[in-house]
Amino acid sequence: MENFQICTPTNLVFGKGTQHQIGELIKPYGKKVLLHYGGGSVKKIGLYDDTVNSLKKAGVDFVELGGVVPNPRLSLVQEGIKLCKAEGVDFILAIGGGSAIDSAKAIAAGMCYDGDVWDLFEGIAPLTKALPMATVLTIPAAGSEMSNSAVVSNEEKGRKYGIGGDCIRPVVSIVNPEYFTTLPKNQIANGVADILSHMFERYFTHTKNCDVTDRMLEAVIKSVMKYALVVINDPSNYEAWAEVGLGGIIAHNNWLGIGRQQDWASHNMEHELSAYNDIAHGAGLAVVTPAWMKYVYKENIGMFVQFAVNVMGVSHSHREPEALVQEGIARLEEFFGKMGLAQTLGELNIPESAFEDMAKKATGAYFGQERGIGSFKKLMWQDVVEIYKLCR
Amino acid sequence: MENFQICTPTNLVFGKGTQHQIGELIKPYGKKVLLHYGGGSVKKIGLYDDTVNSLKKAGVDFVELGGVVPNPRLSLVQEGIKLCKAEGVDFILAIGGGSAIDSAKAIAAGMCYDGDVWDLFEGIAPLTKALPMATVLTIPAAGSEMSNSAVVSNEEKGRKYGIGGDCIRPVVSIVNPEYFTTLPKNQIANGVADILSHMFERYFTHTKNCDVTDRMLEAVIKSVMKYALVVINDPSNYEAWAEVGLGGIIAHNNWLGIGRQQDWASHNMEHELSAYNDIAHGAGLAVVTPAWMKYVYKENIGMFVQFAVNVMGVSHSHREPEALVQEGIARLEEFFGKMGLAQTLGELNIPESAFEDMAKKATGAYFGQERGIGSFKKLMWQDVVEIYKLCR
Repeated sequence: MENFQICTPTNLVFGKGTQHQIGELIKPYGKKVLLHYGGGSVKKIGLYDDTVNSLKKAGVDFVELGGVVPNPRLSLVQEGIKLCKAEGVDFILAIGGGSAIDSAKAIAAGMCYDGDVWDLFEGIAPLTKALPMATVLTIPAAGSEMSNSAVVSNEEKGRKYGIGGDCIRPVVSIVNPEYFTTLPKNQIANGVADILSHMFERYFTHTKNCDVTDRMLEAVIKSVMKYALVVINDPSNYEAWAEVGLGGIIAHNNWLGIGRQQDWASHNMEHELSAYNDIAHGAGLAVVTPAWMKYVYKENIGMFVQFAVNVMGVSHSHREPEALVQEGIARLEEFFGKMGLAQTLGELNIPESAFEDMAKKATGAYFGQERGIGSFKKLMWQDVVEIYKLCR
Repeated sequence: MENFQICTPTNLVFGKGTQHQIGELIKPYGKKVLLHYGGGSVKKIGLYDDTVNSLKKAGVDFVELGGVVPNPRLSLVQEGIKLCKAEGVDFILAIGGGSAIDSAKAIAAGMCYDGDVWDLFEGIAPLTKALPMATVLTIPAAGSEMSNSAVVSNEEKGRKYGIGGDCIRPVVSIVNPEYFTTLPKNQIANGVADILSHMFERYFTHTKNCDVTDRMLEAVIKSVMKYALVVINDPSNYEAWAEVGLGGIIAHNNWLGIGRQQDWASHNMEHELSAYNDIAHGAGLAVVTPAWMKYVYKENIGMFVQFAVNVMGVSHSHREPEALVQEGIARLEEFFGKMGLAQTLGELNIPESAFEDMAKKATGAYFGQERGIGSFKKLMWQDVVEIYKLCR
């Protein structure tokens, strides 16, 4: 086990009806709040009204900015920062899914930085400070409700980059699985793929002596997969949603990733898919992840045998470990299929002609700064092209 | 799953050599620190010197108070509060095991309360505020390094009571498993019994639809048991200690207990053993816990079959669930035996003549306020006597 540091100060309030507490919960943190959200869904499910009522009841002054789209845009973040400065906002409240939350995190960070907020994403300036922010979650997927990271798309430059730092962990997050019961099937499936990917990125490691986190990862991955198949067929099942929702938080607050090297190549490869064709992050991950597994498993076959046996429940001869691994990966593909997720880049309308550019962008080679991605196997752009080819 | 709230803001720094960071880590929180510890062990293992050097290097002003004993005493807590008031202390740093940490938490709480600190333990006044405090841990056991609770013994009244509240979660905790490698075997065994009990108290529940936490509990319980047997035979094994140490933190920071009813009857029954004969908490738990299991399993046999199969690895006919349960409990007793722990109250020098008084104290009947303990099965004093008898 490697040395580690973790600090997860988010006050997490989970369960039925908890959205009514938002006003009282955030009142101590700010004088004027930006209420940030996407489009109609928060209004349709009643969350917008519940939030506004709770803020008013608690006497919390606020302004609002809607319009967040999936793969949230830098332009709206910049607009939000301008608005917050003009209005003297000192606290950001996101209601919605990972896009609204990440957009809110970027605004919170940008409010404490003098230059253009995109500098923080490019690494030109370090992320050291942000306004406090809170969330009311409507989609279990990104894990952003308790994570220390955010991803934003720069639509002008065609880049999708992330920032990370404990200053952007929400101070309060409300997770009410009742909201999940109204999600359409494609959003359910994409969300589950994202949750699982957050755990796969942590699970596949060369770091030895990580049994506590190995076993916890297996526990949560299996539980999420079990209940994902329940909710995709019966989205009204609150108890199943509670399992998926709790799993989604734990998948990405990093309690399952401490003391071990993490990978994140699949996330990097996927960000280029989203940047190329504006597809849902989870949809891209479900295609890229099994291909990544096929390309890298030989780097540490024991790790992948463990995945096949402990996670995917494969149980036949250990005399042929490669067969176990292949069966494990096949079962994961079968699971994604049952969730209704695309299995190929073709289905996502990403042609082979785009592979080289995307691979070069993912690894930095496109910008003359190839750094490689991942740690389980360090991938250069040619490796990424091969993995994209495995997704055809 | 029940609605829940959790907030674990402790900045946890884990691994080799991390004690040297303590001065810089706590510097932002206070102007004058009370350095609180037990006896010679922190000096023998070099932690005292490392701490003092780190505080001086960071320019942190401090006074000190040693002398904490196992089952920490109210009298020293009161002395600490007096000292802190006289010296203008605004931050408490405990170095040691659960006793030093709990004593420090009580001092931190007492500093923010006008009356006698014992009022907080008696429930005469609520715990709402405490000075910030930090820890450097030397024994994995109590989980107090990240928990929201503390237990103190009132030696005059012969009572051992706890307080709980998020205000006594440490703001910083350093856990360096290198320190664990010098522990004597009885402390190792007692600590492991305490860690496991923190998870058993959460695991055995009637709350349904808790698969994520069920599976995580099983994961961590099994990992701790596996590596406990390694370190009891080879205390020098750092990697095994890292697993036990991480397990001990997670066992009690409540991430494994969210959304489910918890029990805590075994802890209550044990506190009376410690109060009666000043035995180690873990030693008492190892005796009481299997007896509690035998007494209560019929309340929810499915839960105990799950324990036998998923935790203790019992795998024979499910046609006779009681046989599975008994085998599961027998294997737990066998495990405690391998750790060198006592199996009976006789071995702990607690005679049957003491059972009734202890049972009445544990349940409150002794003070004319019988409230019963536990939730898996609510135990009145007569039940507790029966459980003590099963420990003979």
